[in-house]
Amino acid sequence: MDIYFIRHGIAADPSEYEYDRDRPLTPKGREKTARIAQKIRQMGVKFDRILTSPLVRAKQTAQILLEIGLSNVVEEFIPLSPGGNIKDFLPIWTELDYTKTEGAIALVGHQPDLTDWAEQLIWGEIGEKLILKKAGIIGLSVPPVASPLGQGQLFLLTSPKWFN
Amino acid sequence: MDIYFIRHGIAADPSEYEYDRDRPLTPKGREKTARIAQKIRQMGVKFDRILTSPLVRAKQTAQILLEIGLSNVVEEFIPLSPGGNIKDFLPIWTELDYTKTEGAIALVGHQPDLTDWAEQLIWGEIGEKLILKKAGIIGLSVPPVASPLGQGQLFLLTSPKWFN
Repeated sequence: MDIYFIRHGIAADPSEYEYDRDRPLTPKGREKTARIAQKIRQMGVKFDRILTSPLVRAKQTAQILLEIGLSNVVEEFIPLSPGGNIKDFLPIWTELDYTKTEGAIALVGHQPDLTDWAEQLIWGEIGEKLILKKAGIIGLSVPPVASPLGQGQLFLLTSPKWFN
Repeated sequence: MDIYFIRHGIAADPSEYEYDRDRPLTPKGREKTARIAQKIRQMGVKFDRILTSPLVRAKQTAQILLEIGLSNVVEEFIPLSPGGNIKDFLPIWTELDYTKTEGAIALVGHQPDLTDWAEQLIWGEIGEKLILKKAGIIGLSVPPVASPLGQGQLFLLTSPKWFN
């Protein structure tokens, strides 16, 4: 099973919104997100499920992935809110058919949480060694084991500018 | 300073050549390598130097990077041969103006050495956690320190198929 981490696109300036959680994507944020979504589709990737942070900018990012046909299912997942803990994702992993050799799931959220989670899946600990830009994507291959922490391998890390 | 690792493209079948080191790129190997070279150029990246393994398939890969205008300098670097040790690269690092905030160097070679070297620059040790396909590319950002091992951050890891 592959796990993709996708960071939300560029969002409106915090000064314009009373609550950070309400900030929407800007037009440029939408455009870059759509570009990476198109590239993922072109690669033949399909997500069994998209889990997203409940913040507006993440939900809008997930919606773009859905509308371009990358999945039929988007679900809000509270632990993808800023500061969430990957331990809360592990029951979802178990619930998924993680023994499948095909298949992929997408997690849409925020920094530094996404690279923290990815690093825990790859190295078992956080090292702040991965740089993930807005609308950037990480792809991990995880073997069919019940405890995926420290078991992943990284096959993709890129920012949307590489898909111009 | 950024360090890019570029794996040689697809090479001719070993059964066709007496010595592994003589195997050239196949037409498909040339084409995929040219594709990634074009993408790197499009991103505005320029290499101060390209260091390459002395094996034919790596030298041909480096030549494609040179011809597309990514650098003016290609040098054979024996430690990039299969089984080479990153410790032999450290004098080169010191010799480069590693305190520059701009600039990039490309290392062209083989697996698993390239990801071993990249992992040692990022995490200080080899974990076999990075997957690098033929004509794939890794991009590391390394701070201006004399001892770069364990100091790098990963900003790019991709295979040529993402640049179709």
